[in-house]
Amino acid sequence: MRADEKGRRPVGLIVQKYGGSSVADADSVKRVARRIVDTHAAGHDVVVIVSAMGDTTDDLLDLAEQVSPQPAARELDMLLTAGERISMAVLAMAIHDLGAEARSYTGSQAGLITDAAHGAARIIDVTPGRIRDAIADRAIPIVAGFQGVAQDTKDITTLGRGGSDTTAVALAAALGADVCEIYTDVDGVFTADPRMVPKARQLHYVTYEEMLDLAAAGAKVLHLRCVEYARRFDLPIHVRSSFSAREGTFVLSETAIAERIAATPEGDKVEQPIISGTAADTNDAKITVVAVPDKPGEAAAIFTALADAGINIDMIVQNVSAATTGRTDVTFTCPQGMAAKAMAALEAVRADIGFEQLLFDDEIAKISLVGAGMRSHPGVSATFFSALADAGVNVEMISTSEIRISVVTRVSAAAEAVRALHTAFGLDADGEAVVYAGTGR
Amino acid sequence: MRADEKGRRPVGLIVQKYGGSSVADADSVKRVARRIVDTHAAGHDVVVIVSAMGDTTDDLLDLAEQVSPQPAARELDMLLTAGERISMAVLAMAIHDLGAEARSYTGSQAGLITDAAHGAARIIDVTPGRIRDAIADRAIPIVAGFQGVAQDTKDITTLGRGGSDTTAVALAAALGADVCEIYTDVDGVFTADPRMVPKARQLHYVTYEEMLDLAAAGAKVLHLRCVEYARRFDLPIHVRSSFSAREGTFVLSETAIAERIAATPEGDKVEQPIISGTAADTNDAKITVVAVPDKPGEAAAIFTALADAGINIDMIVQNVSAATTGRTDVTFTCPQGMAAKAMAALEAVRADIGFEQLLFDDEIAKISLVGAGMRSHPGVSATFFSALADAGVNVEMISTSEIRISVVTRVSAAAEAVRALHTAFGLDADGEAVVYAGTGR
Repeated sequence: MRADEKGRRPVGLIVQKYGGSSVADADSVKRVARRIVDTHAAGHDVVVIVSAMGDTTDDLLDLAEQVSPQPAARELDMLLTAGERISMAVLAMAIHDLGAEARSYTGSQAGLITDAAHGAARIIDVTPGRIRDAIADRAIPIVAGFQGVAQDTKDITTLGRGGSDTTAVALAAALGADVCEIYTDVDGVFTADPRMVPKARQLHYVTYEEMLDLAAAGAKVLHLRCVEYARRFDLPIHVRSSFSAREGTFVLSETAIAERIAATPEGDKVEQPIISGTAADTNDAKITVVAVPDKPGEAAAIFTALADAGINIDMIVQNVSAATTGRTDVTFTCPQGMAAKAMAALEAVRADIGFEQLLFDDEIAKISLVGAGMRSHPGVSATFFSALADAGVNVEMISTSEIRISVVTRVSAAAEAVRALHTAFGLDADGEAVVYAGTGR
Repeated sequence: MRADEKGRRPVGLIVQKYGGSSVADADSVKRVARRIVDTHAAGHDVVVIVSAMGDTTDDLLDLAEQVSPQPAARELDMLLTAGERISMAVLAMAIHDLGAEARSYTGSQAGLITDAAHGAARIIDVTPGRIRDAIADRAIPIVAGFQGVAQDTKDITTLGRGGSDTTAVALAAALGADVCEIYTDVDGVFTADPRMVPKARQLHYVTYEEMLDLAAAGAKVLHLRCVEYARRFDLPIHVRSSFSAREGTFVLSETAIAERIAATPEGDKVEQPIISGTAADTNDAKITVVAVPDKPGEAAAIFTALADAGINIDMIVQNVSAATTGRTDVTFTCPQGMAAKAMAALEAVRADIGFEQLLFDDEIAKISLVGAGMRSHPGVSATFFSALADAGVNVEMISTSEIRISVVTRVSAAAEAVRALHTAFGLDADGEAVVYAGTGR
């Protein structure tokens, strides 16, 4: 941060990203324009990333489907990028009307250079020369999210799910921004999905690692890729609502959080947290490969077949084999949308592998508990499983990382399981909340 | 034209332009895709220019209006270009599904370099390197009409009314195409508007000069700028319907028409035409500046005031002044949409110029007769005014060019005037039509 022109308060470069729900119609666009102009008028330099308005992307996908059952990937990217082109142009118009200068830029014009993987391109370079020039002119650049240009072919690409968040973080990192603000329709990151757990509380801070595990566990607020990118560049993310002026949740490194807490006045301080949140993901299916011959290479054969079919595997469980049969069961989870393809891929290698049958189950939920404090608190697992047992929730699969415990349960037990964990770990808003300093202010 | 691979018939490079009504919905897009693929399969290289689908441009303008009463010009161009981005992408998808390779390109990607006059940019260079590469790969480039990129600012521009036709002709000229086919919802260029004159006939040939005068006289088929561009590069235009396979109207130089007629088998030949068509324009208003002091510089003062206000003037009439008063009346026509602005601009200089009052009249029509043969046929004016007199049509203003006569009449007399002229000059379909060889085949 630098001081403003009169040296009175720190100003800086703020990147703001607005999602489709924040610019759903003309009135929303004007409201967002006002917020941007206010930030700019406070002395900050502002760069804005915007998604397509409301349902535009779905409407364009519908049109593509009417014309072609399987649209050519290059052309689908060309089509979908029209969505941000519309939103960024009207947002720039609205800002103009408030007396500030705004200039819209496509991903290509803003220097978002990607590989050529249409529909899921990865950013390989950011060369924001035109954005820097606009900032130098005290203009407000409005950049299309979700899109870039392929380095080799010069074709227009899109970044896939969560792409606009990734655009924002990548551009913020390249510009050396002080913060990347992600505006959404919720107030920030919560200890649980508030629709499932009414006592969920908003977090003031969360580490990149926790956010990654929360995203992987099914929390929808930020996409994995965007958090990974921010962690790599140690870029502060501020997740907040475009419908209020309240502070949201800061996603930072552990060091940065410690520094911020150290700088908090004594009276506001609370102890460091163990657990940052819970999450439930009900979009997975469970597939069990029954009676696989228990010899080297069989598991590899199963997962090679799945990988060749492009299936994303989440959890995997294999028990020790029954001594009497010499066979074992292998169970894994994958997104429900890929389950049919996974079953077909396995059926095709059934004779080669020699397993007996496939079991399919999409009535499951994955329940996760995430917290950086887990590393140094050995009692977490015991509390976790006791809480579920007391709530009568049966656990079907278990998977853990350094800072996360996930289990698979019946989908009908998901809400009860999350609420039980939320209470057991003191996350409830009216209980002894173990959250970061400053939460709830 | 070159011979095809087996040397059997001439093949060439054909540029095809499809307007918004030709790609109004998914079914239309598929129909157009089939036509393109058929042309390509016949051995031709094909480059396609496409407008925005149906009402897309109007919908985008509505959106802009909801957000901003006077949208910033740069941003309005960015917004509107989303329309062709959508149509070109879905058209490319539909072509893919028919087994040919199509690649869509924005105006910028196709090398349409313009000045920076947003909303009415002029093409200053065409550098179609990527289009040439696509043709070399036997792919079908689909290029967004109506748009380009400004040479100096690198901002996205639009070409204004008739812009997609101009894109097609400019690209065809730069690529050295054999013909530029302009697809529309009528069969070609007619001797009169068929809705006004049921006996109107389709022309087989029309010269660039006649087409320019027809366009200036209010014929809607082709825009002035596109015809000017084609004349400059002597590029054949073929105006035809995307709803039938019939030949339409060729717009060519006089020399090219003479050559084509010379190559026509004797039995099909007819004499050279005198008149190629009639047109009525009911979108003008007439303004009379009453009792202007008749001294040097007064007319200049009037038209300088109008030019400063950006008013396009069409016809101007000034009679000799009355000897008793030393004053004269100046009457001119301009588009109805500019009339209010014109009146205001003149009121502002009334005291300086010293005229008495302004008269306004928007119940007028401009009736025109166009034909290259006029030059060498002195009787045309006599026939023209006799026909109008016999039909009881009163003439209020007269203006002529080398190959055109235009008059202003009451708007209520417009249809009668056009029909009278159409008959008098033998253009009626069941009469002795004086049209080019091959018409009506």
